Amino acid sequence: MTDQLLNERELDFLLYELLDTTALLQRPRYAEHDRAVFDATLQTARGIAAEYFAPHNQKGDQQEPTFDGEKVRLIPETRRAWNAFAEAGFLAAHHDCADGGLQLPEVILRASMAYFNAANIATVAYSFLTIGAANLVKSFADDSLRQRFLPAMLDGRFSGTMALTEPGQGSALGDLRTSARPAADGSYRLFGQKMFISGGDHDLTENIVHMVLARIESAPAGTRGISLFLVPKFLADRTRNDVALAGLLHKMGYRNTTSTVLNFGERDGAVGYLVGEPNKGLAYMFQMMNEARIGVALGASVLAYQSFIHALDYARERPQGRLPGAKDPLVPQVRIVEHVDVRRMLLQQKVYAEGSLALCLYASSLFEDAHTAESADERQAAADLLDLLIPMVKSYPSRYGVIASDIGIQVLGGSGYIREYPLEQYYRDNRLNPIHEGTEGIHGLDLLGRKLDQRDGAGYRQFLALVRTSIDAARDDATCAPLAHALGAALKLLEQATAALREQVAADANLGLANATAYLDLFGRVLVGWLWLRMALIASRALQTGATGGEADFYRGKLQAARYFMDWELAPIEAQARLLINGNRLSHDMQDRWF
Amino acid sequence: MTDQLLNERELDFLLYELLDTTALLQRPRYAEHDRAVFDATLQTARGIAAEYFAPHNQKGDQQEPTFDGEKVRLIPETRRAWNAFAEAGFLAAHHDCADGGLQLPEVILRASMAYFNAANIATVAYSFLTIGAANLVKSFADDSLRQRFLPAMLDGRFSGTMALTEPGQGSALGDLRTSARPAADGSYRLFGQKMFISGGDHDLTENIVHMVLARIESAPAGTRGISLFLVPKFLADRTRNDVALAGLLHKMGYRNTTSTVLNFGERDGAVGYLVGEPNKGLAYMFQMMNEARIGVALGASVLAYQSFIHALDYARERPQGRLPGAKDPLVPQVRIVEHVDVRRMLLQQKVYAEGSLALCLYASSLFEDAHTAESADERQAAADLLDLLIPMVKSYPSRYGVIASDIGIQVLGGSGYIREYPLEQYYRDNRLNPIHEGTEGIHGLDLLGRKLDQRDGAGYRQFLALVRTSIDAARDDATCAPLAHALGAALKLLEQATAALREQVAADANLGLANATAYLDLFGRVLVGWLWLRMALIASRALQTGATGGEADFYRGKLQAARYFMDWELAPIEAQARLLINGNRLSHDMQDRWF
Repeated sequence: MTDQLLNERELDFLLYELLDTTALLQRPRYAEHDRAVFDATLQTARGIAAEYFAPHNQKGDQQEPTFDGEKVRLIPETRRAWNAFAEAGFLAAHHDCADGGLQLPEVILRASMAYFNAANIATVAYSFLTIGAANLVKSFADDSLRQRFLPAMLDGRFSGTMALTEPGQGSALGDLRTSARPAADGSYRLFGQKMFISGGDHDLTENIVHMVLARIESAPAGTRGISLFLVPKFLADRTRNDVALAGLLHKMGYRNTTSTVLNFGERDGAVGYLVGEPNKGLAYMFQMMNEARIGVALGASVLAYQSFIHALDYARERPQGRLPGAKDPLVPQVRIVEHVDVRRMLLQQKVYAEGSLALCLYASSLFEDAHTAESADERQAAADLLDLLIPMVKSYPSRYGVIASDIGIQVLGGSGYIREYPLEQYYRDNRLNPIHEGTEGIHGLDLLGRKLDQRDGAGYRQFLALVRTSIDAARDDATCAPLAHALGAALKLLEQATAALREQVAADANLGLANATAYLDLFGRVLVGWLWLRMALIASRALQTGATGGEADFYRGKLQAARYFMDWELAPIEAQARLLINGNRLSHDMQDRWF
Repeated sequence: MTDQLLNERELDFLLYELLDTTALLQRPRYAEHDRAVFDATLQTARGIAAEYFAPHNQKGDQQEPTFDGEKVRLIPETRRAWNAFAEAGFLAAHHDCADGGLQLPEVILRASMAYFNAANIATVAYSFLTIGAANLVKSFADDSLRQRFLPAMLDGRFSGTMALTEPGQGSALGDLRTSARPAADGSYRLFGQKMFISGGDHDLTENIVHMVLARIESAPAGTRGISLFLVPKFLADRTRNDVALAGLLHKMGYRNTTSTVLNFGERDGAVGYLVGEPNKGLAYMFQMMNEARIGVALGASVLAYQSFIHALDYARERPQGRLPGAKDPLVPQVRIVEHVDVRRMLLQQKVYAEGSLALCLYASSLFEDAHTAESADERQAAADLLDLLIPMVKSYPSRYGVIASDIGIQVLGGSGYIREYPLEQYYRDNRLNPIHEGTEGIHGLDLLGRKLDQRDGAGYRQFLALVRTSIDAARDDATCAPLAHALGAALKLLEQATAALREQVAADANLGLANATAYLDLFGRVLVGWLWLRMALIASRALQTGATGGEADFYRGKLQAARYFMDWELAPIEAQARLLINGNRLSHDMQDRWF
């Protein structure tokens, strides 16, 4: 069984051939760095992931956190991993040097995070959540709050959570009921219950900083009356705040991450500090959404990739059966990678895993550009495009990544189904990703009902132009021309579907949005198809300019995967597009009582 | 949370409207029965399933069997369930009255089994395996063996296993290495290791009867040298046979079924008795395959159905969000079944679950006809058709049933992902079904490489004729005509793909079989599409002849589901068919070193 984490050649390809990550060194923010710093960062991540995270991935699954009514206990390896991550500076790596950070670009840090996800996604979740919570504190808290909490969150003494969901509401945040009552000292007292709070309790850190959405008494109903509070587990005098763990939830996977029900204000109210202005909580959260969604999608991509690596490793080792037409039982069995159908499964995993990883790193580069590109126009363009693409960036890897993990089980057969091999855990862990940070249903509505026409459709027009540019470039390459042709046909279908759906939504919102999830999927396939075309063109050029040996194999694999994507993943959107264009009403018209 | 097991109205529809199960009462074998006996059998199954199986479904998952080096322990509820099943006569229900059975038809027993699968698929697996092992003993063992073992297997004192797989081979049975040495007393001594043997050890019964495939020393290599042996755990003198439990495997689901590694002959050889003639073991097993495969598919269908029931129940109870265009936060939230995308997921579950269940019961009716239809021609025709369809009967419910279980998780969102709700267990249990009794890869090869042209293509021709007859009938019904049209187009694509693939296989077997799994999927969709057309026609006629109230709703649901299937499940085969017709080479040409 392999202990490989991701694939360095693949990451190099994505960072430096598909994306132009070294170009970031030209930007003032990264002028002190060089390519060696980027590479050293990735190597450090890989080393810590291998040493501190991977070894207890299975143990954390099998010995999940327990709560004895007093304390939550995690296996001790979790804390050592947390410490190693913090000591290497990864909690603060994207922050300014002046704030104790490493001032590293987003895309390098995402790629670093990929190693941790590959090694142990449940353990690194505590870090992932803390980074998100710290970003909120940094961006929106006042100086005094920031000084009290941020340094400890950046050096690993405090961890963080995002406390949004309640038992009565999940996706519909506007209906949350946790309330906040102003106290005489300018702080607030919070009352309510939060659910599915990851990392909501544990013994890893001195303190836990909950970023809590709540409604100030007498605030407007709905989304416009939600404020953001910082609610620490321990108060300044080291006494317990009025935040109690009601219990742990028992997940299918991601088991070493505690999933908690938290009661705020069982006694006289949990002390909370308003972050930013009142009633802007949801707006603040949404400003962090893109990062969180790329992060979830990256986790899904990486688990897909690990499933692929393990399936490939098994397929190369395991002898079984003979090829059709060679049934002589005295001839040795072949390794299962020699069976065409096994290669079909591996190809399917490869297009999902590598396509998803490419998508996440591409999205990270847009995120980077939106913040550090030279001109305001470039920054705006990157922000527009990223906003448009986020629904697919979140959904495609979550959906197809899980399928890649599922296929990994199938390649191993019976061995894939038992806990003696890691495949079934990858599946169980990965299955969370289509749920949190927005389901496909939510993202479909967001795409078709909001993102598509945001800023007058600027992101969408930009996307079309980018795809057309790639198609034009690939048309001149004999190897890639058929792929460009396939993508061109798909793009046309996407445009037709988009035009038709815009009219349908305008005529009747509920009916027009009825097939938004199918539209999201169609858009996602075109988007990933575009990345595969770009990867194919790079590969084709590398082969033309003399790549040999293992390098040539690598590029041939990219080309074959791109072809596979166009034939088996992109061509089928035609039927889907037709249903969208014709405004299929079936789900809309279905009645509850007919089920 | 509902405790509903299946849906009686649905089973009635399948047994008495889609299938003509009462017609079986005309056959001499069932002349003593009447419809009331069939119904009472189903009610008994439902009652025992609810009382003895369902209550420990979750407990058996959470407290899986343990092995302390001496004994395997199961939770005690398992034995009570085993006893209740046996005492009600279900182990022997299909056997002749003269042999202590109930002489009940296959399709009624499958429907009964559906209740047990719905309640607790892991616990009833011991019974399922025992029924299969007893069938082998009954069909192929000589009188003396049969008298020694069969009565105890039919009344529940002994249980049975199927011991085929070894660590070195899974799908490729021809390479198994367990050996059998003739002993002086006419019995054999077996040496070797078997793996993934379900029910291979436990404390439920006095004895365990292993049906073991092994190779008699000096037998020919490959599949033609495999014999079938009966190897009891305890010998006649109540001493332990030389069969040792090497250990338990730890599955993702189906946890209350032990999965074992068994060592035969650690000392002087496990005593085994040859069943039937030497070197015919695989042939015997294959005669039992159709039953076993329908049984696995039924389990998959039923878990899909339970996932559907629970998702529907949740969707009807859970308030969340508001419809597009009705965003006033003071208006109450709607139940999530009112969101179109949730109904889309439920419709998808419905077409998979009900379509799969219909397929399994239809296959059972063919199995019945193959054995008890009046004329030899009818029996042969049913056998031909069943043989052809078995790859799809096994694969479609296994594949799409798992997707239905997966969607069930998604409908519940975070609640679907935690063990506090049953959805994630349904998924984990169901995920075994695409693996055992032949993966899709195996069935694709079986279909395209063997079944299609078996008996000169008689089964395939029969299938085409049956589908055409249904299409012709539905064309005259205004409601169903568009569905008939859609199925007609799909059938044409299937025929074109079949013709093209036959040529491709003849030209180059390995290349021609390269996309056999995609062909299997295409065929499966057409097959299930045909069943949906038939169900739609029944529904349409019922509505025309005045069904009202809940009955009308039931039939409208069938119609809507049939439409959904044609649009969203059947129409997309066009792209797939094109790739097959054009002989897509991508997986075939992919090289190991390019991955």
